[in-house]
Amino acid sequence: MSVIDGTSRKRVVIVGMGFGGVHAARELAGSNLDVMLVDRNNFHLFQPLLYQVATAGLEQESIAYPVRALVRGWYNLAFRMGEVTGLDLHAKKVLTDKGELGYDYLILAGGSVTNYFGNQGVARYAFDLKRLTDAERLRNAVLNTFELAVQEADIQKKRELLTFVVVGGGPTGVEFAGALAELIRYVFRKDYPTLRLAESRVILLEAAPTLLGAMPERLRRYAGQRLQQMGVEVRCNTLVADASEGEVRLGNGETIATRTLFWSAGVKAAPMADMVPGDKGPGGRVLVHPDLSLPGHDEVYVVGDMACALHNGAPLPMMAPAAMQQGRHVARSILCRERGEVAEPFRYFDKGSMATIGRSSAVATAFGLSCSGFIAWLVWLFLHLYYLIGFRNRIVVLLNWAWYYWFHERQVRLITAVDKRGDDGGIHG
Amino acid sequence: MSVIDGTSRKRVVIVGMGFGGVHAARELAGSNLDVMLVDRNNFHLFQPLLYQVATAGLEQESIAYPVRALVRGWYNLAFRMGEVTGLDLHAKKVLTDKGELGYDYLILAGGSVTNYFGNQGVARYAFDLKRLTDAERLRNAVLNTFELAVQEADIQKKRELLTFVVVGGGPTGVEFAGALAELIRYVFRKDYPTLRLAESRVILLEAAPTLLGAMPERLRRYAGQRLQQMGVEVRCNTLVADASEGEVRLGNGETIATRTLFWSAGVKAAPMADMVPGDKGPGGRVLVHPDLSLPGHDEVYVVGDMACALHNGAPLPMMAPAAMQQGRHVARSILCRERGEVAEPFRYFDKGSMATIGRSSAVATAFGLSCSGFIAWLVWLFLHLYYLIGFRNRIVVLLNWAWYYWFHERQVRLITAVDKRGDDGGIHG
Repeated sequence: MSVIDGTSRKRVVIVGMGFGGVHAARELAGSNLDVMLVDRNNFHLFQPLLYQVATAGLEQESIAYPVRALVRGWYNLAFRMGEVTGLDLHAKKVLTDKGELGYDYLILAGGSVTNYFGNQGVARYAFDLKRLTDAERLRNAVLNTFELAVQEADIQKKRELLTFVVVGGGPTGVEFAGALAELIRYVFRKDYPTLRLAESRVILLEAAPTLLGAMPERLRRYAGQRLQQMGVEVRCNTLVADASEGEVRLGNGETIATRTLFWSAGVKAAPMADMVPGDKGPGGRVLVHPDLSLPGHDEVYVVGDMACALHNGAPLPMMAPAAMQQGRHVARSILCRERGEVAEPFRYFDKGSMATIGRSSAVATAFGLSCSGFIAWLVWLFLHLYYLIGFRNRIVVLLNWAWYYWFHERQVRLITAVDKRGDDGGIHG
Repeated sequence: MSVIDGTSRKRVVIVGMGFGGVHAARELAGSNLDVMLVDRNNFHLFQPLLYQVATAGLEQESIAYPVRALVRGWYNLAFRMGEVTGLDLHAKKVLTDKGELGYDYLILAGGSVTNYFGNQGVARYAFDLKRLTDAERLRNAVLNTFELAVQEADIQKKRELLTFVVVGGGPTGVEFAGALAELIRYVFRKDYPTLRLAESRVILLEAAPTLLGAMPERLRRYAGQRLQQMGVEVRCNTLVADASEGEVRLGNGETIATRTLFWSAGVKAAPMADMVPGDKGPGGRVLVHPDLSLPGHDEVYVVGDMACALHNGAPLPMMAPAAMQQGRHVARSILCRERGEVAEPFRYFDKGSMATIGRSSAVATAFGLSCSGFIAWLVWLFLHLYYLIGFRNRIVVLLNWAWYYWFHERQVRLITAVDKRGDDGGIHG
């Protein structure tokens, strides 16, 4: 029975308000199904721009959008904030820390978490960028190393503070390394006039022979060259063996003294995947039928990073466009089934991929075409603004970008964590 | 000797980058003195708008401004981020957690902290608004109570969740109560359609017979009436005796069940005042000479909330305008003394005071005149934008205000703390 207005409409529960969940919800808005959205956060997060929060380019609020603002306009959507603690697929119930939710259809869109491949040292000492607070934490850490370095007399310690190691030459690693190098070159040069720029290093490590492995050869070369021009030390064919406090150890035994290790070398399905029975694919992703339903439970769909759907024989990349397409697809499949029609299998439409390297510089592929430089950067800009949810967010982000473009300035360079320790004995710290 | 360029200029150390410290620094910028700024945070915080961050109206970044951005343009200013751990007035040194700073002149502008008047229960369970993270924490708490209430079946618990107690009828209490009432009435009504507005209460408690005691009678009455029209229960002549988990106990023995107690009933000098020798005034404020210098140490000045300067025989109010005027005054006094002239005593110029109650509604006094309603609100708006530091901040704040004015919408309703617990075993949580 509908919890929303007491009618006997069927209920769809969507777990996870990332790209997959939000696009499924939008597709079901206004339909004759009750849709209950569940997430542990009360906002949708635009993860592709987290690296800009981490490099003081955007305020965290501008890349998050309240789920309730999405839900509002639709009589058949509702939201419950809560953590999913289990799934009872036989009784058709989602268990949360705040109670149970029965469903007729279930869409699981729990996303992914960082994969440290079992390396405890790296897991303990590395920063990653999956959640909103990860970005704030990384920004605080980067800014704090400069505040410490400027007061540090010991040359060795100063060098350690000013060395930043980025692991993983995929889009996130490339974008973060580029944005950090520009932050240092354009902004910190003015903020810390007594530090010499040459004392600071951004090192980008990639295990494969080139950066951006999924991109065409020409773009890979362009990205590597641009990063090096910007002062990033790009080292391919380089594995990270371990990390400890103040040090990263490479596969060849070499060590790099650093206080800031950023890990973007892998993702795996969110822990929620373990609540789902059946076989798992690489990265713990849930193996699904071609229509994205769970084997043995055709009323349960898995979408986005959590699902291991195949495309040309290989698992789909764990990227926002795939999640959005899958979210929309399963929503339409449910509507089809409710009309008594047969749903089609999911077909991924590869729109290409892109990565920004710095100001006026990006690489992009689309429809078999590839471009780099200013045009690619404009395309990147436009598409990110387009997919960002919330008109106000778009204005604030555009304002920040324009500011940075004209003035070479990033104003959100605030260390909010020092504050956070609290010193008043309150319980809220 | 100057640490900045090795010359032998005299050095001024300014501790605290609030209104007093920043205005002193601006006055000394470009002079022939070396000026070293010290703060535990790397930003200046515009405290008067903290309540808007706490009520989801502004992002926290828009009311903070990096000290290094202030310092940049001036060859004679420098900044050290650090916590002051002690003062050696005889050796003329400021001790920080990152080393010592010698000075020729010292300006102490450490501000104030919340005064719970020794009430341990209140100190433990109440929220306050002094630091940037206080505002984020309070916002998270307010939003979280609604997310819990919407899923709560027990009527008693629901009532407790939806009851907000604000203690203190000064400008901060009035502004927070008004902004919270509007958040519930305009925004949450749309966000939580299944909650009845009548279930939610905002209670403003004041020990004195009226709100806004420093204002003229007419404005006090207007403020009380407006708040009541907005649904705030205003209770004057009401003391808070104690607080425990889920409950506030009043002086008359009555208890109010609530999860959210906000305390704005008192401030006292920052703990740094205890590092200064000599007598203290009310609230632990440092007693100073009429020129704001410390008795026995005429090279040390104390300004802002920390200083107990007299005006018409009474201690100056602990407000931003007094701190700004004092900061500028001691900076000019130092320049006078360096020219061999005699500095004048500080004279406070009372520009009046103001408080906003809600959308299109405020009270203000200036130059013996008083006004209320829309005009006062426009004046409030203009002055707050004027004193906010940073052009980009002004644009973002204005954008948020316009958005709220036209759409009755506050978009920064994000619960960022759930995220913060962390679940990946990292050390950075």
